[in-house]
Amino acid sequence: MTVVKEVMRQLPQEQIIYFGDTARSPYGPRSSEEVRLFTRQIVDYLIQFQPKMIVIACNTATAVALEEIRAYVPVPVVGVIYPGARAALSATKTGYIGVIGTDGTIRSGAYEQALKRLSPHVEAVSKACPTFVPLVEKGLFQSSEALGVVREALDPLRSLPFDTLILGCTHYPFLTDAIQLVMGPDVQLINSAEETAREISTILHDKGQLAHSLETPVHQFFCSGDPEMFQKIARAWLGEQICAVPVVWRMSQIL
Amino acid sequence: MTVVKEVMRQLPQEQIIYFGDTARSPYGPRSSEEVRLFTRQIVDYLIQFQPKMIVIACNTATAVALEEIRAYVPVPVVGVIYPGARAALSATKTGYIGVIGTDGTIRSGAYEQALKRLSPHVEAVSKACPTFVPLVEKGLFQSSEALGVVREALDPLRSLPFDTLILGCTHYPFLTDAIQLVMGPDVQLINSAEETAREISTILHDKGQLAHSLETPVHQFFCSGDPEMFQKIARAWLGEQICAVPVVWRMSQIL
Repeated sequence: MTVVKEVMRQLPQEQIIYFGDTARSPYGPRSSEEVRLFTRQIVDYLIQFQPKMIVIACNTATAVALEEIRAYVPVPVVGVIYPGARAALSATKTGYIGVIGTDGTIRSGAYEQALKRLSPHVEAVSKACPTFVPLVEKGLFQSSEALGVVREALDPLRSLPFDTLILGCTHYPFLTDAIQLVMGPDVQLINSAEETAREISTILHDKGQLAHSLETPVHQFFCSGDPEMFQKIARAWLGEQICAVPVVWRMSQIL
Repeated sequence: MTVVKEVMRQLPQEQIIYFGDTARSPYGPRSSEEVRLFTRQIVDYLIQFQPKMIVIACNTATAVALEEIRAYVPVPVVGVIYPGARAALSATKTGYIGVIGTDGTIRSGAYEQALKRLSPHVEAVSKACPTFVPLVEKGLFQSSEALGVVREALDPLRSLPFDTLILGCTHYPFLTDAIQLVMGPDVQLINSAEETAREISTILHDKGQLAHSLETPVHQFFCSGDPEMFQKIARAWLGEQICAVPVVWRMSQIL
């Protein structure tokens, strides 16, 4: 949803067809095989709408399924890992980059691989923060409890001299204030959602496929769990003015 | 050269073939017709090397010649305007963006067009700063004279409530400190050179064309003016460690 919000902000003319796998999230603790299967199912569903691009707006799914999905569909597929890696390489002055993410993302080593692929001499250190997603999903991201949880998770990183920290999970931007407070003002945080929206723009532009209409597009939202709950979350996260009445269908048949 | 430096930093495996039109720069005060002709000549020269991409690393040339060159060569052509526009749209919170550039760039309206194309409701204000390039070319970018020149040029912009200012000329990053001082800490400066390097990375990656070699590539530098002078500037700007001995050929035949 953090990626959707950024796409709506940076590319307000583009129509979005969104699928939130609310019945099976979070993906972080799941096995690679499961995440790959779920991602293929969702892509099979979305491809029916003949999108000009597919965005895997989840770090865990990107980490394990991006290459497979890229080979599998005939349209560009953008994940959230390379955008974050590129933004970090652009931001770092020391060439030493930190990465935090879910268990699945960190275990995959996908960020280190992306960073090394782009710039072989860069140094990276990563740490899984499995306590962050449950905190955000409970809506506790601005509580004092949040600060305590973030401090406990990130304390081991504070002595390391990286100057750039990739928030390698689309939930983590909600914890930006707490993470910045714990890491101090000299560490630049990279929001992979923001960076992904920008790369979507770059690729659509390169292909001459930016939307032309001046009318506000009608987005479509689908989810696998309770649509009322999803609708509430979507309104709260996207804001009434951006997305007044997100209509949500429950797509239980894909499960 | 600011773009080259960023490409070397963000994509150290990519080989660069550079042409600096030192005999005919700066392009800022020239007519659109002249800039278009010069850009075509240089692209004709560079295309012989069968590059996988062409980068027009000059705002003035991008503003007037990008679309023509894109239609003219069979490889992706990246300019420096859309990357800056996209970075500004990603950075702005108010949706009000400032742009400074050469006479040619500002007169073309290319930044306003790019911003509106991506996000129709964004507001932009622009101002030509014809005194900045001569200052940088004289090497005076850290002098007290520089601060005075920057203050005089930007003073009319200080009362406007934009939160993001695009440095719409590849010379301007040298004046970053003075510009930030004059505009105040609340205005975020967008360095189009940095942003362009990142978009080159995005597009090469999307096309599966990132360089694979782990060896340091051998870059090639060409210029239309005095090669010794150019070599000195290249060493000073790129740094000895990045580019120890840039070999420079004078290509007078293209003039």
